[in-house]
Amino acid sequence: MDWIRNYNGQLAKQDLLASLIVTVMLIPQSLAYAMLAGLPAQVGLYASILPLMAYAALGSSMTLAVGPVAVVSLMTAASVGAVATAGTDQYLAAAVLLALMSGAFLLLLGLVRGGFLANLLSHPVISGFISASAILIAASQLRHIFGIEGGGHTLIEILNSLAKNLPNWQGYTLGLGLACLAFLFWVRKGLKPLLVQLGIKNSLADILAKMGPMFAVIASTLWVAMAEWNSNGVAIVGDLPAGLPTPSMPELDLSLAKELWPAAVLISLVGFVESVSVGHTLAAKRRQKIQPNRELLGLGAANIASGLGGGFPVTGGFSRSVVNYDAGAQTPMAGVFTGVLIAVTALYFTGAFYYLPKVVLAATVIVAVISLADFGAVFNVFRYSKSDGMAMLLTIVVVLAGGVEAGILVGVVCSILCLLANIGQPHIAEIGRIEGTEHFRNVMRYDVECENCVAAIRFDERLHFLNAHRLEESIGAIIERPGIQHVILHCGGINHIDASGLDALIEINHRLEQLGIKFHLSEVKGPVTDQLVKSELPQRLTGEIHLSHHQATCAIGKSATLAT
Amino acid sequence: MDWIRNYNGQLAKQDLLASLIVTVMLIPQSLAYAMLAGLPAQVGLYASILPLMAYAALGSSMTLAVGPVAVVSLMTAASVGAVATAGTDQYLAAAVLLALMSGAFLLLLGLVRGGFLANLLSHPVISGFISASAILIAASQLRHIFGIEGGGHTLIEILNSLAKNLPNWQGYTLGLGLACLAFLFWVRKGLKPLLVQLGIKNSLADILAKMGPMFAVIASTLWVAMAEWNSNGVAIVGDLPAGLPTPSMPELDLSLAKELWPAAVLISLVGFVESVSVGHTLAAKRRQKIQPNRELLGLGAANIASGLGGGFPVTGGFSRSVVNYDAGAQTPMAGVFTGVLIAVTALYFTGAFYYLPKVVLAATVIVAVISLADFGAVFNVFRYSKSDGMAMLLTIVVVLAGGVEAGILVGVVCSILCLLANIGQPHIAEIGRIEGTEHFRNVMRYDVECENCVAAIRFDERLHFLNAHRLEESIGAIIERPGIQHVILHCGGINHIDASGLDALIEINHRLEQLGIKFHLSEVKGPVTDQLVKSELPQRLTGEIHLSHHQATCAIGKSATLAT
Repeated sequence: MDWIRNYNGQLAKQDLLASLIVTVMLIPQSLAYAMLAGLPAQVGLYASILPLMAYAALGSSMTLAVGPVAVVSLMTAASVGAVATAGTDQYLAAAVLLALMSGAFLLLLGLVRGGFLANLLSHPVISGFISASAILIAASQLRHIFGIEGGGHTLIEILNSLAKNLPNWQGYTLGLGLACLAFLFWVRKGLKPLLVQLGIKNSLADILAKMGPMFAVIASTLWVAMAEWNSNGVAIVGDLPAGLPTPSMPELDLSLAKELWPAAVLISLVGFVESVSVGHTLAAKRRQKIQPNRELLGLGAANIASGLGGGFPVTGGFSRSVVNYDAGAQTPMAGVFTGVLIAVTALYFTGAFYYLPKVVLAATVIVAVISLADFGAVFNVFRYSKSDGMAMLLTIVVVLAGGVEAGILVGVVCSILCLLANIGQPHIAEIGRIEGTEHFRNVMRYDVECENCVAAIRFDERLHFLNAHRLEESIGAIIERPGIQHVILHCGGINHIDASGLDALIEINHRLEQLGIKFHLSEVKGPVTDQLVKSELPQRLTGEIHLSHHQATCAIGKSATLAT
Repeated sequence: MDWIRNYNGQLAKQDLLASLIVTVMLIPQSLAYAMLAGLPAQVGLYASILPLMAYAALGSSMTLAVGPVAVVSLMTAASVGAVATAGTDQYLAAAVLLALMSGAFLLLLGLVRGGFLANLLSHPVISGFISASAILIAASQLRHIFGIEGGGHTLIEILNSLAKNLPNWQGYTLGLGLACLAFLFWVRKGLKPLLVQLGIKNSLADILAKMGPMFAVIASTLWVAMAEWNSNGVAIVGDLPAGLPTPSMPELDLSLAKELWPAAVLISLVGFVESVSVGHTLAAKRRQKIQPNRELLGLGAANIASGLGGGFPVTGGFSRSVVNYDAGAQTPMAGVFTGVLIAVTALYFTGAFYYLPKVVLAATVIVAVISLADFGAVFNVFRYSKSDGMAMLLTIVVVLAGGVEAGILVGVVCSILCLLANIGQPHIAEIGRIEGTEHFRNVMRYDVECENCVAAIRFDERLHFLNAHRLEESIGAIIERPGIQHVILHCGGINHIDASGLDALIEINHRLEQLGIKFHLSEVKGPVTDQLVKSELPQRLTGEIHLSHHQATCAIGKSATLAT
């Protein structure tokens, strides 16, 4: 918390302005994401107060805006929906427990410096997961647009439930919803150019364009209140309890905790990865840095605070953080101000949301998440790497067909299996000298010089239990050529040799020895050498360990000349 | 089956001699391993007839001796014991089904060329597994030495059951058992030197020393028959049904198959790994080769044949294969002869085993497996690599404390997690030129030449979702030094770049561009280049992709000179 020592009025002014803008954006989002999570709207407000203050105390990003976000809300709905019925006290209690468990897991990871676990989620898997989640979220909100009942945690369930209930569609609701969607899409695409044309500064135009949902909320609330469309079947938010729940530790339901822990782990990791990537991007713009470990602590504290304050899982969101940054937030104090503003709203202004139509909240969610879906990325990733593309496509398909938790697990397992398969099929090249250099390259790709009595092989992978036999096989094939007296293994690509790899080297050395062929190593890296000297290989090796491949060929050439 | 075309009388003579010797060794072993697997003794004979012939038809090793082996028998006991009670018809039916399933799985792997799956079992895990299994096997046989009841699938269960039943120990049985153990240990250590002293050839002495168990069987059978020790409580094999079961396909019990499939997979993989390693070792001695894929087919057919003939899972065993080799077996026909000899035994000589004391079979098992246990290897592996040592130790501990299946699974998972953790912590070095060469090495280890405006970094790992952020971090740290104008990434150790790694490179390039620093790559390998050209990186790169690091530094030096 270095920033607090140099905090002054100027910074406070900037933070306060940013917090005002973020609050205007956060109020409709927090209500909408609570609805997406299957919770009463006011829970969204509760999750937007204490977590922001807790993050400010421990987090490392200056501009990250913590609170309810779409993907985490969807994951909350999926996991809590599996153990309780939406609308019940048990459902709320489970969501609160999920926030506490997710917070505890993040804190634990932060304390044991276990943030590397988040690396198990590769970029294609996360990207596919977010795109597919966006589709699921948008589909889940369609029922509000039509003003019908419904549910489901997979695309098929959601569409089935939509199709079943579609005959009950509400004309007023649908009209309002479509109007709102049209307005919000226009705001996103068309408002900013218009404002710029009107002479408004680019950055201010950006911010005003992000206020679209608030305009829609205010206008539609006034309209419904005046035209009394709520009596025409338009669902409204209705009475929200004023005031804040007293922060309290809920009773720990162990059997519930046992059911929720896999979800808590997944929500934590996904939330952490999303949040850190936003944090990195914004920090880099100002040449600041974020510390992944302090992010774990900050997000962990935020989730614990959310649970204690009666909220649900939160993380750092993309769109609000960008607005916070653009609006000039300088320190996490902006988050504290935002929390205070939301608290004031929850205490005194919940009555203002009485006539707020739910369909408008649904429309803001749909417009927000549609921009997250990027299926074109699948083609780009596929073109670059089939296995990454497969992992991404599989994640998308399983999220849509089997739900968020199954999707992310399948994605992670698929990317690990692809990695193992890839390590198991190393690239092995025979190499020769590029004329006039000390550089050695694949004989199949370059015009190189080789000596008949020397076979030089480059093994492009860690030498490991998954692939050690491949080296044995390829050396076995090469020494069938007549006249080979030396085999040099170029180790420039061998970043590690495990015990199985060591056994393979000893075995190769032994077999070559029986055939009167000397076995040399070249370009062995420092850490690999450190390990090899602990083994019997250096003593047993019939040849030498050479610093560079060039030196190896020179030394062997000399000894061959001496011998003849 | 190339060998069959050139088969002649001379080869047949050699194979027949070897098969006679192997049969003498196999008879007590097959009875004993059937007992170890919890099956009637004659099932061991059934598993030693058809499998040998099936392997001869499809396998690729000239000298591998297939049949019941200790570790696979223990695994059979553990998995079949979990679904049926030893001694019942259900137990036998489950063992037969396990052989069929294991055979089917191996055939399937052979057909889809899936032998690489066996590579998931690293050397330390397999070695730890076999050592711990040997202890479990020896402990499980102790009850026969004391002549008491007992059971259990973990060391604690076995020792508990021993302690509980020890008060019922049988004096005659214990006496015979200890005498037999002493004799067998002496044969193993002392007989061969004695025979050599007596002027017997080394190789013959070796073979005679391996016949020890048969001497013990004959002598103890005669002794018990004459002294009628069976009426003094010495358990004998008793009536074995003469003849052979008609080969038949048992009814498929789907629910049983569902329970047994994980065991079938594990038994197949462990059996395959053991067998292939024996096969490789013996083949290499005669400059022959074995083909892992044909081994899958051969062992698969052997297990199917075992199941059809009323036997239990089999694989290629170490000790009998070595004897087969030493005794001069030239082709798999030796296995066919052995199968015929065992069939003759099962048809006409089962009566000879009536007085064979079970305690002697137990003693032969104990002496055979004790030599498999090599706990000293743990220290060697630990000294070489902590993570391999951990995987090995964990495998041993879990096999002893939780049984064979849990042990091997934990070992495999542990070695994969260690691999992921290791990839996640790549070695990253800053490099400079070793004077007078074109070779570049770590500035921390070697006395090298560097230029102030150039930072050269070598990343010693595939650039991958597990570690891409590490490269960003270390480049971020290096460019904080003033005056850096060029960053060269030496890619000699980067064997693969996945989509997350590509994103990291693009991001680094972008950040460096904003700081006015050029980003170069050097020594990018062919397969990595092939992939990179499919991406936008080469166009976006502010610097160049250089063939060798030396050329990169020369080119940058020249351009710097031109600029000043």
